[in-house]
Amino acid sequence: MSDLSPDSLLQTLQLQPDSHLVLALSGGLDSMVLLDLLATARQLQPFALQAVYINHGISAFAAQWGDFCARQCAERGVAFVQRNVVLTGRDNLELKARTARYQALAEFIRSDKHLLLTAHHSDDQLESLILALKRGSGPAGLSGIAARCNFAAGALCRPLLPFSRTELTAYASQQQLSWVNDDSNDDTRFERNFIRRHITPVLLQRWPQFSATARRSMQHLADLQQLADYYTIQAAERCVRSNTLLLAELAKLIPLQQDLVIRHWLKSYALNPETQWLTTLKQQVIAARSDATPVLVCGNYQLRRFAGKLYLLTDAQVAVQEQSLNWQGEPKLQLPCGSKLYFTAQQQADALPLAAMSAQIVFGRLSLRFKPAGSAMSKPLKQWFKLWQVPPWQRLQVPLLLVNGELVAVAGFSSSAEPQQAKCWVSWQKQD
Amino acid sequence: MSDLSPDSLLQTLQLQPDSHLVLALSGGLDSMVLLDLLATARQLQPFALQAVYINHGISAFAAQWGDFCARQCAERGVAFVQRNVVLTGRDNLELKARTARYQALAEFIRSDKHLLLTAHHSDDQLESLILALKRGSGPAGLSGIAARCNFAAGALCRPLLPFSRTELTAYASQQQLSWVNDDSNDDTRFERNFIRRHITPVLLQRWPQFSATARRSMQHLADLQQLADYYTIQAAERCVRSNTLLLAELAKLIPLQQDLVIRHWLKSYALNPETQWLTTLKQQVIAARSDATPVLVCGNYQLRRFAGKLYLLTDAQVAVQEQSLNWQGEPKLQLPCGSKLYFTAQQQADALPLAAMSAQIVFGRLSLRFKPAGSAMSKPLKQWFKLWQVPPWQRLQVPLLLVNGELVAVAGFSSSAEPQQAKCWVSWQKQD
Repeated sequence: MSDLSPDSLLQTLQLQPDSHLVLALSGGLDSMVLLDLLATARQLQPFALQAVYINHGISAFAAQWGDFCARQCAERGVAFVQRNVVLTGRDNLELKARTARYQALAEFIRSDKHLLLTAHHSDDQLESLILALKRGSGPAGLSGIAARCNFAAGALCRPLLPFSRTELTAYASQQQLSWVNDDSNDDTRFERNFIRRHITPVLLQRWPQFSATARRSMQHLADLQQLADYYTIQAAERCVRSNTLLLAELAKLIPLQQDLVIRHWLKSYALNPETQWLTTLKQQVIAARSDATPVLVCGNYQLRRFAGKLYLLTDAQVAVQEQSLNWQGEPKLQLPCGSKLYFTAQQQADALPLAAMSAQIVFGRLSLRFKPAGSAMSKPLKQWFKLWQVPPWQRLQVPLLLVNGELVAVAGFSSSAEPQQAKCWVSWQKQD
Repeated sequence: MSDLSPDSLLQTLQLQPDSHLVLALSGGLDSMVLLDLLATARQLQPFALQAVYINHGISAFAAQWGDFCARQCAERGVAFVQRNVVLTGRDNLELKARTARYQALAEFIRSDKHLLLTAHHSDDQLESLILALKRGSGPAGLSGIAARCNFAAGALCRPLLPFSRTELTAYASQQQLSWVNDDSNDDTRFERNFIRRHITPVLLQRWPQFSATARRSMQHLADLQQLADYYTIQAAERCVRSNTLLLAELAKLIPLQQDLVIRHWLKSYALNPETQWLTTLKQQVIAARSDATPVLVCGNYQLRRFAGKLYLLTDAQVAVQEQSLNWQGEPKLQLPCGSKLYFTAQQQADALPLAAMSAQIVFGRLSLRFKPAGSAMSKPLKQWFKLWQVPPWQRLQVPLLLVNGELVAVAGFSSSAEPQQAKCWVSWQKQD
């Protein structure tokens, strides 16, 4: 958008014929300027437009502002809706109000034809940057709010982002707009208001271009973040196999890229650990002695390493099975912890031959001796599991089939019967 | 460094037995704290220490401060030197003083045993960050000054970087140090002083941790920049061949990485073009029609594209040779524009056979017909050059050897004589 005009607004928006625009309207200067631009733009090119006022119930004047917004929309022939949201507690009120506001607005963006518009401008960006520094954010946080992004089922666009508050004020005065002043904007207990009152005006008075140059810096950061994301996704494709991380592939990356890959992997499980936790993971788990069996907890998950892989496991995945049960010829057996055994008359892929039509199912009896068909000797099950590279926590979950107290099959792995001895076939469906 | 003590200073510095420390001493609070810590640390572990006072001649008190520094060093048994630097003009005085200061200090760092120490602290970092935003810097600029880096023949270390001005003041008062107040620190015409006076105190009063959190952000940026540098160097190894860029390799990269590779390449020629220039290069030169011969200038260079490569060329490399000269059997011929022809009796690598012992040397006669030995037919030289994929600007610089008006050799490329006809051998040494 090169200037504050309905023409260049339309150029920025690049609307499809069936676009449906939803304006987040507060009644303040910024969103009133956008309402006015949109209403005028609609005379140049028709499009569906609806304004939504969110009443947070924070200010005593909230209902009055809603009425003001309704009147301003009516004057311009713009459809208007008000939504009330309820906030609880006084802590983190800014964050709570913001979250509730976007949640309420998301309900209006129901398809890819819907576009939410907010009236953020360049001074907002500068305030966001200073708040991100206050939080010690990384480049993603420091690069500020995007001019356009996906939102709910559609998209969110902020067409006023290139303009300063001064430019918006000039437009409002030229068009003789009226607007409301949110009294909470003066409450410097709110962090953003403190910055708006005491920091940005001082910077902008000394260096009028500060918003613009800071925006350039933020764009550099957004670019760099995008580059890092690209390489991280590429690296993750080589290292990540669903809930496991291939440590030999990870080791080929430089340390910073390793960290980003691990974070990317954990993020897909909604985990976002502290830097210190990540250091512990690398030192105590990934780099542990090869015979160690380190465990580290993160949220509802445990991280364990085995045979060159790092596993992210739920409690269920490491639960010890103890119950034993009997199979007496039925085609399906539901096991504790959700896994299942299937018994079929015909051979199936991954099914093992059984020379009996009844068996006892037990778990965790790792010292039982076992002699797979075709193998020259019998060894304790524990040694077979080691040979088959079964992670220790899985060993206790594998159904063991006993006939007359003798181990005849290890579900999913091996049977003592030859195929020609089969009276039936057993397959195991794990619960992951 | 975990606290402001001689012990943890030594831990941070990790000195070798023959380390030679040079302290940049201004007499102000920050460097007096570092002088005091160093002098005490030397009682715990001996090392060579010298303090250097740089007199910029800006303040009327500069000589007095030099005397103060000399006395403070004498009291502590620390070797002291004063250096005067001369600044001209009043523009950009901060930058000029900084450059002159580091130049003077560089003279003291003459080997990898020498370590320069400066007393920068975390408030300085925050000021630098705000100044970088004012300039619209990218992540390298935003990530601030390094705690340790190479400097002159040795290194530069800033051990006080984790500490705030408040912590330094507390140490100085506890140790009953004296220091001088540089009156220019109060002159808010200097940009850094303006920030120090009007911005950082306001931020730090509201959020005392602001320096620390901003430092965390800056570390994130430094990390990300390091990651981008790593991938850029890797990509450049595939794309860059001295003064040419392989465009097919470049095209395999994502656009952001392409930009960084081009910038990395140009930087090795001390070129740092504007974003707009880079866009022009990509649109008008790199993406030009395959039969176009686009030229773009940058500093003292021109960029030209030919046969899938982008060339960075000096004026000399594209100069048209017009002079003609005669060879009459001498072993070496100096050509205009610095290149040379060597004539030898014995065959040499890259040398072409000549069936005569005299010739006329001309340039740019592209319509002359030429028949290379072993080739079935004669064609205009222009067509041979096309076949040999010689860039157009090089074609006019190649020495052509004529005998009786007939083209017998194209230096560096081809001769009409068979090896068995050779009376001598000619090789061409280009001036690059």
